[in-house]
Amino acid sequence: MSDAPTYEAGSFDVIVIGAGHAGCEAALASARMGCNTLLLTINLDAVAFMPCNPSVGGPAKGHVVREVDALGGEMARNTDKTHIQMRMLNTGKGPAVHALRAQADKIAYQHEMKKTIENTPNLLLRQAMVEELVVNDGVCEGVLTQTGAIYRAKAVVLTTGTYLRGKIILGDLQYESGPNNMRPSIRLAYHLKELGFELKRFKTGTPPRVHKHSVDFSKMEIQPGDDVPRAFSYETTEFITDQLPCWLTYTNEETHGLINSNLHRAPMYSGTIEGAGARYCPSIEDKVVRFNDKPRHQIFLEPEGRNTEEMYVQGLSTSMPEEVQLSMLRSLAGMEQVKMMRPGYAIEYDAVDPTQLWPSLETKKLPGLFTAGQINGTSGYEEAAAQGLMAGINAARKVQDKPPVILGREQAYIGVLIDDLVTKGTYEPYRLLTSRAEYRLLLRHDNADLRLTDIGYEIGLISEERYQRFVKKRELIEQEKERVLNTRVRPDLPHVQEVLREAGSPELTEVIELAQLLRRPELNYQHIIKMSPAPVELPEEVMEQVEIQIKYDGYIRKSLQQVERMKKMEERRIPEDIDYHKITGMAKESRDNMSRIRPLNIGQAARISGVNPADISVLMIYLEQYNRVGAAD
Amino acid sequence: MSDAPTYEAGSFDVIVIGAGHAGCEAALASARMGCNTLLLTINLDAVAFMPCNPSVGGPAKGHVVREVDALGGEMARNTDKTHIQMRMLNTGKGPAVHALRAQADKIAYQHEMKKTIENTPNLLLRQAMVEELVVNDGVCEGVLTQTGAIYRAKAVVLTTGTYLRGKIILGDLQYESGPNNMRPSIRLAYHLKELGFELKRFKTGTPPRVHKHSVDFSKMEIQPGDDVPRAFSYETTEFITDQLPCWLTYTNEETHGLINSNLHRAPMYSGTIEGAGARYCPSIEDKVVRFNDKPRHQIFLEPEGRNTEEMYVQGLSTSMPEEVQLSMLRSLAGMEQVKMMRPGYAIEYDAVDPTQLWPSLETKKLPGLFTAGQINGTSGYEEAAAQGLMAGINAARKVQDKPPVILGREQAYIGVLIDDLVTKGTYEPYRLLTSRAEYRLLLRHDNADLRLTDIGYEIGLISEERYQRFVKKRELIEQEKERVLNTRVRPDLPHVQEVLREAGSPELTEVIELAQLLRRPELNYQHIIKMSPAPVELPEEVMEQVEIQIKYDGYIRKSLQQVERMKKMEERRIPEDIDYHKITGMAKESRDNMSRIRPLNIGQAARISGVNPADISVLMIYLEQYNRVGAAD
Repeated sequence: MSDAPTYEAGSFDVIVIGAGHAGCEAALASARMGCNTLLLTINLDAVAFMPCNPSVGGPAKGHVVREVDALGGEMARNTDKTHIQMRMLNTGKGPAVHALRAQADKIAYQHEMKKTIENTPNLLLRQAMVEELVVNDGVCEGVLTQTGAIYRAKAVVLTTGTYLRGKIILGDLQYESGPNNMRPSIRLAYHLKELGFELKRFKTGTPPRVHKHSVDFSKMEIQPGDDVPRAFSYETTEFITDQLPCWLTYTNEETHGLINSNLHRAPMYSGTIEGAGARYCPSIEDKVVRFNDKPRHQIFLEPEGRNTEEMYVQGLSTSMPEEVQLSMLRSLAGMEQVKMMRPGYAIEYDAVDPTQLWPSLETKKLPGLFTAGQINGTSGYEEAAAQGLMAGINAARKVQDKPPVILGREQAYIGVLIDDLVTKGTYEPYRLLTSRAEYRLLLRHDNADLRLTDIGYEIGLISEERYQRFVKKRELIEQEKERVLNTRVRPDLPHVQEVLREAGSPELTEVIELAQLLRRPELNYQHIIKMSPAPVELPEEVMEQVEIQIKYDGYIRKSLQQVERMKKMEERRIPEDIDYHKITGMAKESRDNMSRIRPLNIGQAARISGVNPADISVLMIYLEQYNRVGAAD
Repeated sequence: MSDAPTYEAGSFDVIVIGAGHAGCEAALASARMGCNTLLLTINLDAVAFMPCNPSVGGPAKGHVVREVDALGGEMARNTDKTHIQMRMLNTGKGPAVHALRAQADKIAYQHEMKKTIENTPNLLLRQAMVEELVVNDGVCEGVLTQTGAIYRAKAVVLTTGTYLRGKIILGDLQYESGPNNMRPSIRLAYHLKELGFELKRFKTGTPPRVHKHSVDFSKMEIQPGDDVPRAFSYETTEFITDQLPCWLTYTNEETHGLINSNLHRAPMYSGTIEGAGARYCPSIEDKVVRFNDKPRHQIFLEPEGRNTEEMYVQGLSTSMPEEVQLSMLRSLAGMEQVKMMRPGYAIEYDAVDPTQLWPSLETKKLPGLFTAGQINGTSGYEEAAAQGLMAGINAARKVQDKPPVILGREQAYIGVLIDDLVTKGTYEPYRLLTSRAEYRLLLRHDNADLRLTDIGYEIGLISEERYQRFVKKRELIEQEKERVLNTRVRPDLPHVQEVLREAGSPELTEVIELAQLLRRPELNYQHIIKMSPAPVELPEEVMEQVEIQIKYDGYIRKSLQQVERMKKMEERRIPEDIDYHKITGMAKESRDNMSRIRPLNIGQAARISGVNPADISVLMIYLEQYNRVGAAD
């Protein structure tokens, strides 16, 4: 710690530490909700920095970005303003897995976000290195910086990313560092330990960057952006149409041979790396070792921006020695002469075990302290932004004496993400996947606004004007659904039969509702309005909702029934002061885990790892008794 | 040092270490001259970073930028493409001190320069930390990076800026760091010492940055840009017309009181800072202490760019404790409520004593190694760029077996700068001033192209097309000068007399040359062409030259006579192998200093500090003898 004498530097409602993807959302949400907010960062020139892939979205992650937008967050708007390519993925599959993905302009993304922050009322952005939290009577009441400044606040949100005791590892080399040679946060890690937090050591990595002019694209497959203009935010009305392509190539036998013959120098395998890596975002050496039967892996070449020739080599994340990296790169088709501009590296950092958090993202140990992003054990800008937004919202609501906003697993991927973290913890950097959501037919990319705009409006992050537009859209959907469900067409209408014939669908033999026809796999809403036009012209996204909601009505209904059952479990709240060790007849592991997690309700309790249905039955009986007569002692 | 095993990473003609303002020019010049060039930097996101004032130019410095441009450097063009304000200073004074100054867009400047570098053939930009030089038989043959990569080259240019054993000092706090919390270069400093270089410890500093919205500009004086579009580069044809204003306020009694009462905590005075600071770029505490009779100092508020609300507080460079900085800021008119975004700080770094360099900027101790920029003891982006350009040119010429380009003191401010450094050395960060140039009437802002384009063209940095345009301009100037010198007007021309009358100038009584009239203080070239139009329409800059060259002809001629005398001294070359200690009759101090500097000629010898005219006479006699019979032993 520095020897600087301390001084009182000001008082805020909320302080956010770290201005990465989590910190920016947290600070913006808090300030927009009317809280006087301070955002502190080690390097003011690295606000919203993307140290790894210059992209936003993709399966599950893209859904989260839409959810962040529906709740009034910034990531979607910022991406819409600065991207270089936009693509809807999985359009060949069902609507549940459609996912938007953008290539970001790394530099533009950063500076646009910084500008937004600088122009947000109630929000002060300041460069400072936080070394300690101010703790009073077991409550977090502010922060102490390296220069001795004490900033006081009613709530603090900690978003340290990979800076917390960060260490770069690259072949035989390792040194304390934040991402890309920026200054790490060392003292704060020790301070969190002193405060009693359990820290984990995680690891992530990034691939090398190469010079565009040294690549032979004729040997690669082009990956252009979509022709249809798309946006993440429901507010975006201006679309960037000038898009840059990405390129696809593959690893091969030579690449894999290079990796295998240099494994003894790979920090992943030589024992240098102690942190747990992300299973779903593995390094190339990890992929080659774990999937040694796979003859090749995809490698995407992605521009880092409009005004740079640097390209990101997606799929080749690595901490192999620099010279091995270059050989690996040059083994790829089209990269035989490639010029490497920066090598990949692994970075280790400290994270808190997220089971130490309430679902509000407030820490159990230190009321007033919230954590969000990689410090909670996740990977990914989107996961970070989502947590940052929720932590910012809940920090602000704590200041305003309001209950926290906790999204259900049936409401949002954000709900799944946070529930997974705080209930199950994680032993490696957690990445959101569509498979993690049990109600993924409900949590679609297309309906994020229908799921969450009401909440965003209620908490004050959605403007009145935007909300009225949303309400109008929702009404139009309901009206048109009503019409499609109740309008019947007769076999004697020649134009109806003609539409069916042309679509290769059986002709009508009796009167039938439009909805029935819409459910036929070979028909879509465009066919329906040819048979029976809507009374008013409907926006694209309204038609899309009508089609999806009616077509998948059966599946959706089934999901909703499951949700109902789960909700009954979730309604059975568990008092905070319950002592699990007093519950007889429950496995010790379950008692221990429940004591640690302190689930808010039976639903959450049932999801704790190691907890089985018998434990839940015992818990429910105990709770009935408890509620009748109080704690059984 | 890292334990990474070394490996051969490639061979280049020239390697440049550091991608700041010196390194960028060096690398671009070398690559453009046809040398296969590698540019290494610790952080690829901080190429051409402006850690201090977001501005380029001003007195002497602006001249240098024009000279850099005339020689084919990049700083002028890059500034023209990215500035937010352009102003010609001192327009009320003579042409020798006219100086252009731009406010830069800090971020745009960086990324435009990086893009230019990425798109320059023969040039590879790569992120790497250089830890050692590869030395073979006393010759520098390459570099060794932290990852164990050995890059070989025929010449290496070292431009370490403030990164070399950098240390940030801020109030009671100090820590190893490059500018703005970037990773410093530590190992290389020790390595240079091991190689026998004498290092100096210098210090520079930067002021706090504040948020634009928290400033009350109504209490300040506006400093708008010029209405006339201006550019640094002779190549620029598109001008940025949308300019942002700066603002002027002043320190006052309260500010000075705050500083005086906190001097015990100022690292400048408490003994924390060991490095020598720049006399002409002092911290505010230094100014207040040294000029304690001055009731106020100017403080300029300058935007850091178009897309940020950060503002630079020029004039308030300081390393006082953070809380004192804020109080100082708030004592200024218009800043009563100001929000500080980052504090100022001092930074200490290692520099080489520049008397260890030849005028080519090659080190005497280690052939093949050139140094440029702050490592040579200068301050300022422009001084750095100028040295970088010359070091890059001379590194490339060494590779190409050509003699170095050494600019004379009468040719360019760059000549003055380098001659001062290598001949006199410096005990503090050296800043270029117009007063340092003895021929400043020759070294004007307006004639940098006439002075240097021939050289830029000859060395291959000025394109044929640009050169032809320049030659055409020069011809037009000569033709028109000729005409003005030889055209006579008669008293019986009524329109001539009318022009004179209107200008308040005595009417003609006899036939007279136009040139005679032009030399009248109250007349300018516009009056002349009203009396006698030029045969063709002339561009503005041609008319400007005709006017200046004829109007100041007398003074210019006098300067040129002095130059002739100096040149005679410079022509008397001193053999490299001369042993000064054998010269009897010369003061020991002079012998010692000459031995150390090893001046190339009598002119340079005479400028060495401690050397007096008697020493020079002795030296000249000795040389005559030496040339006749060889070394006197």
